[in-house]
Amino acid sequence: MEFKERTNRIQNELKRRNLDALFVFSTESEPANVRYLSNYWPNFEMTGVLVPLHGGPILIIGPESETFARSRSKIKDIRKIIDFRVSSLPEYPGVNIATFDGIFKELSSVHPIEKLGVSGYTMLPVPVYRKMKDALKGREPVICDDILLEMRMIKSNNELDCLREAYRITEKAWEATLGVIKPGMTELEISSEAEHFLMWQGAEETGFQVWCCSGPNSNQAISRSTHRKVQEGELIQMEVGARVGGYSSAISRTFVLGSISGEQERLLRVGLNAEALTIKTMKPGIKGKDVQKTVHDYIKKEGFGDHILYGPAHGIGLMECEGPYIEATQELELKPNMTFNIDIWLSNSKMGLRFERGVAITESGIEVLSDYKRGELIILR
Amino acid sequence: MEFKERTNRIQNELKRRNLDALFVFSTESEPANVRYLSNYWPNFEMTGVLVPLHGGPILIIGPESETFARSRSKIKDIRKIIDFRVSSLPEYPGVNIATFDGIFKELSSVHPIEKLGVSGYTMLPVPVYRKMKDALKGREPVICDDILLEMRMIKSNNELDCLREAYRITEKAWEATLGVIKPGMTELEISSEAEHFLMWQGAEETGFQVWCCSGPNSNQAISRSTHRKVQEGELIQMEVGARVGGYSSAISRTFVLGSISGEQERLLRVGLNAEALTIKTMKPGIKGKDVQKTVHDYIKKEGFGDHILYGPAHGIGLMECEGPYIEATQELELKPNMTFNIDIWLSNSKMGLRFERGVAITESGIEVLSDYKRGELIILR
Repeated sequence: MEFKERTNRIQNELKRRNLDALFVFSTESEPANVRYLSNYWPNFEMTGVLVPLHGGPILIIGPESETFARSRSKIKDIRKIIDFRVSSLPEYPGVNIATFDGIFKELSSVHPIEKLGVSGYTMLPVPVYRKMKDALKGREPVICDDILLEMRMIKSNNELDCLREAYRITEKAWEATLGVIKPGMTELEISSEAEHFLMWQGAEETGFQVWCCSGPNSNQAISRSTHRKVQEGELIQMEVGARVGGYSSAISRTFVLGSISGEQERLLRVGLNAEALTIKTMKPGIKGKDVQKTVHDYIKKEGFGDHILYGPAHGIGLMECEGPYIEATQELELKPNMTFNIDIWLSNSKMGLRFERGVAITESGIEVLSDYKRGELIILR
Repeated sequence: MEFKERTNRIQNELKRRNLDALFVFSTESEPANVRYLSNYWPNFEMTGVLVPLHGGPILIIGPESETFARSRSKIKDIRKIIDFRVSSLPEYPGVNIATFDGIFKELSSVHPIEKLGVSGYTMLPVPVYRKMKDALKGREPVICDDILLEMRMIKSNNELDCLREAYRITEKAWEATLGVIKPGMTELEISSEAEHFLMWQGAEETGFQVWCCSGPNSNQAISRSTHRKVQEGELIQMEVGARVGGYSSAISRTFVLGSISGEQERLLRVGLNAEALTIKTMKPGIKGKDVQKTVHDYIKKEGFGDHILYGPAHGIGLMECEGPYIEATQELELKPNMTFNIDIWLSNSKMGLRFERGVAITESGIEVLSDYKRGELIILR
């Protein structure tokens, strides 16, 4: 039902923009838009959905994914194209393959495909783009990334429920993981424990590859776990998230084993305060850039302004980081049913912290999607 | 050392092709080429390496990955560009950003960048391509996917050691996982166990998302685990692989819990025979298409020809599936230090199997990289 409604909304938008179809492109690492329309998300291969102005959508997949896609996709019209194979270019002789040209010609019996919109443009591979343009007889496709980014910003109740469950699972995994961490364990062992707990709590996959980064590595805003052993007296940053029905949560805390130094405590306190200030500032009607200014003014006042990378929050949903972004250029006002991850990244060059938790904007204020150890300095003894 | 040598080989190739630089593009889901040159592989963001004809290579990353990339990359000259951000388009006001135009101008003080080769073309996003072309004053980049695909085909002893260790870990994880599987466990619980065992055996990550697909789902060539509970008397297909130093192994077996039917046994026996026949047929000097013909003739003779998708083997290394592919169009001869995964996929529409294990071509024959339950019908009681 909800999938059908999404297609209908896109078709209304196509009519308004005077377009004949929208092509939505996704990859294994960025599957959100195609999942939003079909519930399918690829493994190894690329994928796309073609939504014509009239008639039903078509799921386009790579040569090896047919039975897999059929078992997942809400869209029953499925075609394979060679361009969505893996980048090492197997040739699949003998496999029956469609082309953009063939698909556009077929659709043209209902309504000619001349003006095509494209979503996922920033990832769209050149050869796919060229074949589409050839099939359009040289007409340039129109960039329409805004259509899906905006539709996805306002969550339905079903989407909110998926997110709530994803945060519940993540809280459980955090609690279980903190229970097993000991000095001498490697970052990889710790993140592996967290992933294992996420899956046994019912996640369909991890929301992203969980990372744990410790000591000097804690200075990494995006990271991956290493074979480094965690030690007492150092900062440990861990980012954990579950995926439920496509929706990803993310809870990030930074903590210490054993004893905490004054310098560490000062960094963590400023981070916790910035997180609390962001939650306090976010409400329906406020502009993203005003939230940013309030929080970053505080961080600058505390002397950590030089290391600000972004934030203090970003949208969350089918992607761990999606629009709208709360940043200095964000003119958009927060609206009910937008969902965000508060995302405080602070560093003093030597060490860093990340604090993340989810919130949903409501009619009257804010719903905190995870209260896990909110405001708490975590020191494991 | 090995990384430096790879850059040198590319520079020799640039000279031969009369090119001024090679741009190598990779993504989070397909990081192989950039990892081959830098040891860095991205999380969330995209990445690339620019190898100029003269001078050192430059690693190009997204806006959020600087400290992470510095901790991993063998290439010390690192630049951030906005186009390698995530597809939901955060703006990163205040972050210091490079451009292709700026980088090409800077390099031109040593040697003008006019003729640019590109690797990773099948994934290269249109906006990145356009900015590169603008920076080349409208000159079209030249597709050079073959340079890295061919370099990566012949493995060094270090690369072989990484693969051997990755298979060792995967065998251990298979053995431990088979020890805990019980009827009623979900596919996701089973694959989560396998991933957990891989990590505790020392993998740096899983080679891909491990999947377990059972009963009707076993019919999926590429798959993802679901919440379906596995039951006695049905086929269970599981694909497990570890990543070590960038190199991915993959061992796939299909097995049954409890009792096996005649139809299941016949499918599994043909799969085991096809696997054995592939190993027997592969040797230095034989053409890929001749291996394919021998094995597929056997599969057709047994009546399963309608469901052949590809194979019966593909290269393995930094990607779980890389060139050369053993398929009907493959004219290339097998050479010492090429590494392959035997990959037998069979189906009778109702159920399917996948058998995969690794081999390396030697001077005189073949080294089986994993002997795990080779030739065995696996029935868990």
